[in-house]
Amino acid sequence: MAVNLPLPIPENLTAVAGIELGHAEAGIRKADRKDLLVMKLAPTATVAGVFTKNRFCAAPVQLCKEHLAGLRPGAPIRALVVNTGNANAGTGESGLAKAKETCAALADLLGCAPTQILPFSTGVILEPLPVDRLVAGLPKAISNLKTDNWHNAALSIMTTDTQPKAASSKVTINGQTITLTGISKGAGMIKPNMATMLGFLATDAKVAQPVLDRLVKDVADRSFNCITIDGDTSTNDSFIVIATGTAAVEVNAIDTPEYKALFAAVQALAQALAQMIVRDGEGATKFITVTVEEGRNVEECRKIAYSIAHSPLVKTAFFASDPNLGRILAAIGYAGVDDLDVTQLNLYLDDVWVAKNGGRNPDYQEADGQRVMKQSEITIRVRLGRGDAVSTIWTCDLSHEYVTINADYRS
Amino acid sequence: MAVNLPLPIPENLTAVAGIELGHAEAGIRKADRKDLLVMKLAPTATVAGVFTKNRFCAAPVQLCKEHLAGLRPGAPIRALVVNTGNANAGTGESGLAKAKETCAALADLLGCAPTQILPFSTGVILEPLPVDRLVAGLPKAISNLKTDNWHNAALSIMTTDTQPKAASSKVTINGQTITLTGISKGAGMIKPNMATMLGFLATDAKVAQPVLDRLVKDVADRSFNCITIDGDTSTNDSFIVIATGTAAVEVNAIDTPEYKALFAAVQALAQALAQMIVRDGEGATKFITVTVEEGRNVEECRKIAYSIAHSPLVKTAFFASDPNLGRILAAIGYAGVDDLDVTQLNLYLDDVWVAKNGGRNPDYQEADGQRVMKQSEITIRVRLGRGDAVSTIWTCDLSHEYVTINADYRS
Repeated sequence: MAVNLPLPIPENLTAVAGIELGHAEAGIRKADRKDLLVMKLAPTATVAGVFTKNRFCAAPVQLCKEHLAGLRPGAPIRALVVNTGNANAGTGESGLAKAKETCAALADLLGCAPTQILPFSTGVILEPLPVDRLVAGLPKAISNLKTDNWHNAALSIMTTDTQPKAASSKVTINGQTITLTGISKGAGMIKPNMATMLGFLATDAKVAQPVLDRLVKDVADRSFNCITIDGDTSTNDSFIVIATGTAAVEVNAIDTPEYKALFAAVQALAQALAQMIVRDGEGATKFITVTVEEGRNVEECRKIAYSIAHSPLVKTAFFASDPNLGRILAAIGYAGVDDLDVTQLNLYLDDVWVAKNGGRNPDYQEADGQRVMKQSEITIRVRLGRGDAVSTIWTCDLSHEYVTINADYRS
Repeated sequence: MAVNLPLPIPENLTAVAGIELGHAEAGIRKADRKDLLVMKLAPTATVAGVFTKNRFCAAPVQLCKEHLAGLRPGAPIRALVVNTGNANAGTGESGLAKAKETCAALADLLGCAPTQILPFSTGVILEPLPVDRLVAGLPKAISNLKTDNWHNAALSIMTTDTQPKAASSKVTINGQTITLTGISKGAGMIKPNMATMLGFLATDAKVAQPVLDRLVKDVADRSFNCITIDGDTSTNDSFIVIATGTAAVEVNAIDTPEYKALFAAVQALAQALAQMIVRDGEGATKFITVTVEEGRNVEECRKIAYSIAHSPLVKTAFFASDPNLGRILAAIGYAGVDDLDVTQLNLYLDDVWVAKNGGRNPDYQEADGQRVMKQSEITIRVRLGRGDAVSTIWTCDLSHEYVTINADYRS
């Protein structure tokens, strides 16, 4: 049911010098399924990430944060390891021990320290990780490490995704071309801060660690933190940017033209990867952009945008292509902006002016609303009339298929 | 699909002296449907209410608040008028004019001032109220006013409800018996502060206005503000308590035994009416009680309880009777209690101890979780281990039927 995903996913994703990818079928949860991915990095690489704010953050997320926070010169991150089929979350001390065991096993195989490994897991929560099967799969994954393996990498991190998600781009900075390739996964339990999603984006630029730390946060706020499917924030969300440092472009400070160019390229690719997650949202039949304008600040615009995007009544109306647009007004009204003057508010569905100064626009015709509702891509635009802040988020509708998928997930 | 609603709804609801009820089929939205209700009060009656906090609060809600705030001695509220089929919300100035027209028409027929009328509407948002049909239906409703008409009253305020919701009780205070009867409606767009719900509860006790004002708020916080179906707060929610003052029991102050007895009786009835709304929740197949204990304060307990109750992933798992209980941990984790130490947390499903100190209880067996999940009534109990505050809320599961109902609502 994916909405306008670029199909077929390009098999010719661009390799990024300095990062090799290898996958395996480890049988974590099901047999005959690519469920293990190793990404091996050049020693010149810098890595930065942002992670879920869920208090039940998974064992691998705890280790990722610890390893990134403890980075020392001369001991960079050398590899990432991702398993699907089990989230290793809600698993307490034994879960943490198993995540450490995973890092130690991969470190042994690659000849580095366990703290130079970042582990990632996605799948069912509250079940013990079958770490023996995971570790047994590592040699196979390492045996097929190669730079030109992004398509398999995208396949290897899927869970309820119906399609792999990946994209590549190139940008020229100071006359030098750099390459960017990213993959993402996630389809349910998707919400700001962040989705149940994993996103990995690599470039061959050379980026100083503090610069990359800042870049990953700012990009996440404009991409993966702007999507929602069902409002559930997962225990395992992670977005990682890797700069392998093999190209001739160096970015050493934030207030430079090089940074601006790199930021724009990474942001564009991250937004594409984030939007692919929404387009492949569980049961999605519509891709919906919610833009709230003329707010006093970005925070209130986001509050209202998310209130609309999370409303089951709004989402089911979109699924039905029913312009029952009063539901959008209701969602705006309960968003928690307590001093909102609704008489200043205007609502548009694409080019159709639905509500004017807080009431139904006298010129609004149901047929016009109906026409837009039938589209597969729709923009809801709200003008608050009280400032100049703007926020945009992306979401999808709520369909029977969503219920089916989530009522059947573990079977 | 209602879950364990008391059936058949008692036709022998107890009349409350001092309040007469009359209904009509006004054809507001559909023909041959009871969609108009008038409740006429004795001049001795006091009335108090709480209303939606939605910024798009409907025109009738605006008037209700205005009329109650402007109450003067000698000019009490004399009647309530309720229509279904149209919410008169998101209708701007013309909606307000139509609500005023409704009050004026009923006031004319009853010989009182328009400010002595409280209007209520429920139904579709953003569509003009057909006030002519409403006003044309008033004489019919008045012609069948009688005290013994609560069953028809409950039928007349239904929208997507599958069943009328009503209950009666009696309580003896200082040797005198008073009667309480209430009705409620609502099935979707249900959330704290409050449901798309209307609740009307009448007693023949004599209650001073400031006492009734306090009582209605405190009762709402322990009943209608403790339920959620889909997290959507409507534009029209209202809960009204009427004390007709015809019985020999007088309640003139809050710190009296009479108040305590009355409060307990009103609360019990209001909780029953509120729970009926959840039991008849759109598509509901399970009635779920969420109790969060050992919090530092009630607010954080409520946050976590609502986070669980609103999670589409938790709700679909309950629909599927699938003990995929890690989803509950995830919902606790993203509830926004930032300093929550999950290693102190315990989770129970009825009598089954699922998570112990933040991880899976080693003694937990999936078969035990499965047994509870198959029940139609389930309690989720969370112990936070950081204080002694408690909060309980009631909700239901999320089924295919919910999507069907809300994708078809206006057709």
